[in-house]
Amino acid sequence: MSLNNLGIVKRTIVRADKAAVADLAKFGSATVHEAMGRVGLMAPYMRPIYPGASMCGTAVTVLLHPGDNWMMHVAAEQLRPGDVPVAAITAPCTDGYFGDLLATSFRARGALGLIIDAGVRDVKTLTEMGFPVWSKAISAKGTIKATLGSVNIPVVCAGAVVNPGDVVLADDDGVVVVPAAIAAEVAAAAAKREANEEEKRQKLASGVLGLDMYNMRGPLEQAGLKYID
Amino acid sequence: MSLNNLGIVKRTIVRADKAAVADLAKFGSATVHEAMGRVGLMAPYMRPIYPGASMCGTAVTVLLHPGDNWMMHVAAEQLRPGDVPVAAITAPCTDGYFGDLLATSFRARGALGLIIDAGVRDVKTLTEMGFPVWSKAISAKGTIKATLGSVNIPVVCAGAVVNPGDVVLADDDGVVVVPAAIAAEVAAAAAKREANEEEKRQKLASGVLGLDMYNMRGPLEQAGLKYID
Amino acid sequence: MSLNNLGIVKRTIVRADKAAVADLAKFGSATVHEAMGRVGLMAPYMRPIYPGASMCGTAVTVLLHPGDNWMMHVAAEQLRPGDVPVAAITAPCTDGYFGDLLATSFRARGALGLIIDAGVRDVKTLTEMGFPVWSKAISAKGTIKATLGSVNIPVVCAGAVVNPGDVVLADDDGVVVVPAAIAAEVAAAAAKREANEEEKRQKLASGVLGLDMYNMRGPLEQAGLKYID
Amino acid sequence: MSLNNLGIVKRTIVRADKAAVADLAKFGSATVHEAMGRVGLMAPYMRPIYPGASMCGTAVTVLLHPGDNWMMHVAAEQLRPGDVPVAAITAPCTDGYFGDLLATSFRARGALGLIIDAGVRDVKTLTEMGFPVWSKAISAKGTIKATLGSVNIPVVCAGAVVNPGDVVLADDDGVVVVPAAIAAEVAAAAAKREANEEEKRQKLASGVLGLDMYNMRGPLEQAGLKYID
Amino acid sequence: MSLNNLGIVKRTIVRADKAAVADLAKFGSATVHEAMGRVGLMAPYMRPIYPGASMCGTAVTVLLHPGDNWMMHVAAEQLRPGDVPVAAITAPCTDGYFGDLLATSFRARGALGLIIDAGVRDVKTLTEMGFPVWSKAISAKGTIKATLGSVNIPVVCAGAVVNPGDVVLADDDGVVVVPAAIAAEVAAAAAKREANEEEKRQKLASGVLGLDMYNMRGPLEQAGLKYID
Amino acid sequence: MSLNNLGIVKRTIVRADKAAVADLAKFGSATVHEAMGRVGLMAPYMRPIYPGASMCGTAVTVLLHPGDNWMMHVAAEQLRPGDVPVAAITAPCTDGYFGDLLATSFRARGALGLIIDAGVRDVKTLTEMGFPVWSKAISAKGTIKATLGSVNIPVVCAGAVVNPGDVVLADDDGVVVVPAAIAAEVAAAAAKREANEEEKRQKLASGVLGLDMYNMRGPLEQAGLKYID
Repeated sequence: MSLNNLGIVKRTIVRADKAAVADLAKFGSATVHEAMGRVGLMAPYMRPIYPGASMCGTAVTVLLHPGDNWMMHVAAEQLRPGDVPVAAITAPCTDGYFGDLLATSFRARGALGLIIDAGVRDVKTLTEMGFPVWSKAISAKGTIKATLGSVNIPVVCAGAVVNPGDVVLADDDGVVVVPAAIAAEVAAAAAKREANEEEKRQKLASGVLGLDMYNMRGPLEQAGLKYID
Repeated sequence: MSLNNLGIVKRTIVRADKAAVADLAKFGSATVHEAMGRVGLMAPYMRPIYPGASMCGTAVTVLLHPGDNWMMHVAAEQLRPGDVPVAAITAPCTDGYFGDLLATSFRARGALGLIIDAGVRDVKTLTEMGFPVWSKAISAKGTIKATLGSVNIPVVCAGAVVNPGDVVLADDDGVVVVPAAIAAEVAAAAAKREANEEEKRQKLASGVLGLDMYNMRGPLEQAGLKYID
Repeated sequence: MSLNNLGIVKRTIVRADKAAVADLAKFGSATVHEAMGRVGLMAPYMRPIYPGASMCGTAVTVLLHPGDNWMMHVAAEQLRPGDVPVAAITAPCTDGYFGDLLATSFRARGALGLIIDAGVRDVKTLTEMGFPVWSKAISAKGTIKATLGSVNIPVVCAGAVVNPGDVVLADDDGVVVVPAAIAAEVAAAAAKREANEEEKRQKLASGVLGLDMYNMRGPLEQAGLKYID
Repeated sequence: MSLNNLGIVKRTIVRADKAAVADLAKFGSATVHEAMGRVGLMAPYMRPIYPGASMCGTAVTVLLHPGDNWMMHVAAEQLRPGDVPVAAITAPCTDGYFGDLLATSFRARGALGLIIDAGVRDVKTLTEMGFPVWSKAISAKGTIKATLGSVNIPVVCAGAVVNPGDVVLADDDGVVVVPAAIAAEVAAAAAKREANEEEKRQKLASGVLGLDMYNMRGPLEQAGLKYID
Repeated sequence: MSLNNLGIVKRTIVRADKAAVADLAKFGSATVHEAMGRVGLMAPYMRPIYPGASMCGTAVTVLLHPGDNWMMHVAAEQLRPGDVPVAAITAPCTDGYFGDLLATSFRARGALGLIIDAGVRDVKTLTEMGFPVWSKAISAKGTIKATLGSVNIPVVCAGAVVNPGDVVLADDDGVVVVPAAIAAEVAAAAAKREANEEEKRQKLASGVLGLDMYNMRGPLEQAGLKYID
Repeated sequence: MSLNNLGIVKRTIVRADKAAVADLAKFGSATVHEAMGRVGLMAPYMRPIYPGASMCGTAVTVLLHPGDNWMMHVAAEQLRPGDVPVAAITAPCTDGYFGDLLATSFRARGALGLIIDAGVRDVKTLTEMGFPVWSKAISAKGTIKATLGSVNIPVVCAGAVVNPGDVVLADDDGVVVVPAAIAAEVAAAAAKREANEEEKRQKLASGVLGLDMYNMRGPLEQAGLKYID
């Protein structure tokens, strides 16, 4: 339908530059989110199914309806090595759209993991497979295959806009989306941000206060901070 | 900053066609949402501050930070008669960003009401003014004016993408966003949808069943529905 | 399917005794809930779409899937005057399953209103019609018609078990379910409970304390209550 | 018990100065909350049971256990005209602790309304009585009378500390608590805050922008705000 | 009380067939839930206190009041080896009803673990004991022993009906309830469902798409799916 | 400001007696919470960032605004070995106020961990450091440094009042606050409570029922408990 992009699969998408993706993969989601000016983060209810998971790849987007995972199979065909499928739902839903069989298929196509604003199941097997998923819920509830959604249209997933080909970076702190067009620029900003972090860490570890290291005492006094005993 | 669109005010935006806006204003949010193929709806936690409120206008978007309403004043200057300011926040927040003074200013600029994915206050006065607000919360908690956001960049508000100039239609059932480019087309689809609704209503009121009016008995039987006593 | 009751419509149900329903209709949900020993109440997130609504009737149950309202039309045919359709969903969902057309049909069949553990839309029109709905959400989001559920099987709605034919009493305080078999007994217990309430109210209004009226001072002292200055 | 203040009723409390209470009653919760420096507000989930309700009085505090309203009756005796009972629960609970009989008793003692971080019932009757309640939930679920809590000890209610005698001001925007000792000072600060509000409102209504009225253009430019076309 | 089943302990219950329980124990909750036609699942907020936990046994049901765990001790006596106590609360509550002492007692009676629609505490010790609990919350908050509930009456726990003797199967994906009468039938359906799963997994792992393996291309095209570049 | 304690740093606080802190550290949060009479517990949404974490120390309190962590740096200077910083926010917020750099600084000052009623980030590094945090959320979202809060004023954190110098004990079951003045008394009560626990555990492990060990059969019968077959 021309009106709403539903029932469409876009086969040709422009993925972010591979080198930029590799550069971004060196950083954590917090650093990249800061480097972008504190935008592009998904809601904090998106949690990994096991601790220590992390991935960085290019988005293949999927729009699904509540309780219907038909388009997951359609999306599988569009996956390329290094891709991260990002699944958005047209209404809040906690059903388990994804389990170990789909994970086997997605992995065979080269997917690094899954981002889904709904539920996932077979988490024990997914954990054993080392196939990471960031989701809103864990639920054994299965889904049907009845209604068309779309693949590779722009979606809103957990509050963040994701365009096909964008960089998706996920770790224990959450999921951040970097538009493909600025991936290299953001990677550079992230690198700059981390450059002197080790130096700062050592200073702080030695007992130097942030108050002094960041020269905050003046601004705090100017803002009216009062010390009393 | 080029990286993230923060600190930017876009003065020139393309508003949806006035005639299309006027056409859409004749319908409810449920009808328009259906006409778009069931996309574009904000999350159902967005509720009007008083029952019976409704509005339909063109979006002026605002991106704000948690607890900071500085950009509201910046947005005021960009409002034109018939506009609907749409405020998104970079992280979940329930603070009261907006009260009767800002409403007075927004109304003087021609705004029809406000959509905000956060809190609002002075709701008694706003109700007396007939200035409708759809919000996530009501809260007396005030905000500061310290950090730049942006005006008229694309935002995600309560799960829906809003571009400046899009049509925003809000009533008791929720808030739906119609991209400016397809406003006329959606209005036409909505009109078509409603065309024979009165006829349906009369049939149903007379006791005709949807089962018969929509010819559902065959498909239900085929799907395996069994009647038992 | 014999395994799970899905895809079944039970046409013959035993509705609670009409006189008992009429008796229960004289009381509020709080009184009836107390009379039953504080069981049978739906979760407090079930709210009426307009203040002051109340109804008391016999349940016709519907089990639906997330985002799918097909069985609502099947349920319509099973409604008799004085019935209250009670809709449960197999997974949490806020979609708007029900609007003014279905309300017109349900009313034509004699339904008093609707109880649904999901969303409803067209609330302005429903309010004008005086067709009350208790729901978890209000949402313009429409639903599809693809998967079979069931009608008149036992369901769990908002945490309460409802069997077809049970009495459902709903008002501003919530929704309480009275099993058909004990409807008369509960009505009698409720009547007994209210019998001397007016007398109590007048005593309390005159300044008599519950401490004295209910003889609580002794038990409180025995429990160790200490008064200090 | 000396360890925890449980099982204690403090009969003698120092109520805030009557004149200061009367002064504070002239303002809305948003204004008073601002005048205090944006502290003392209860969580925004505390909502009035009917729109337009407002009250300002002195706190009599009650600490209760989940599902147990015994201490409500103990609290009734401690109420004086102009008091506002404030009920905190030792764990999250939505039960209906309070209904029309207790309201009749509390009103007879001079209470202006009720603040409770739990549920309330008989809301239709309470609305007819004009007895306002701000609560977390509405629920027909009744409570037992089995365990001691306390009256007039400091409590945390919906995130705000309340000491007996403090001023509690509640309206459509929420509930704010003013420590008795600074009631007059806060009233003065609130008055100052509102002094030139009418002038501001007229300016804004005439089309003057907050940007100019508050001299924000300089600071915004200094912060880096960029206008583009 | 005859009215509401409160204050009752049913000593004689019909537990599901041991062989059927053993058969069901071979499957995961997702498979069993599918085999039942996607009903019988508890809400996804029910989570295990440690990853990797799983159990399958026969339900001994307990109905408790908010903040009161008296009936847990009554339930202990009714437990037999292979039982799973299932605790429902008459209103939402997060208190810690259960800790290591009760776990020691329940284990001595042969219980496999606990399902509770409330809170649990001593989770570190329970984890060390290998005593699994699926709960809504973890909370150090203790409970009282003041009010009667019931043991072995039908309950609604986290949205699912549980009758005493039903099979309860819980793992990382959630908690599913199988009525005793259909336990063998469901086990057979689950076995059938898993029969060719390994074959499917190998196909998908080799790169075969679900689109082809499940013959979805025809139905998708018929539903209107369009591929664009 | 004298009105509201904002913008104040109190340098001299009275920390709870070291011996009492050491005594309390021997117990779990559930035991200490019971020993205090079931008060002083933070809300159960406060969870440790990794399982098995525990700490017991003296509170240094911080009050911050939504999305602003400036005062964290001010608080660092006030930390002494054995302290536990407790961060409250003036409105609900999930932003990541705290990461590995601040943890390095806090640890260098002797802090044992962090309690924060908001979000935290860098949780992987914090876990590797063994620096425990109990928080409401995990979020990569950073914060600004623009507005003054306070250090070492009384705060409400996750529903519990915390005064500077109070004992804060946190483990897998939650966070409990013991006022400094009663720390020794509570430690003694906790010790008493645990004294015969091992004996009880062995009895229960041998199959003795709580019904008999606690002599509950009489009270249960008196309350009306009925056994049926």
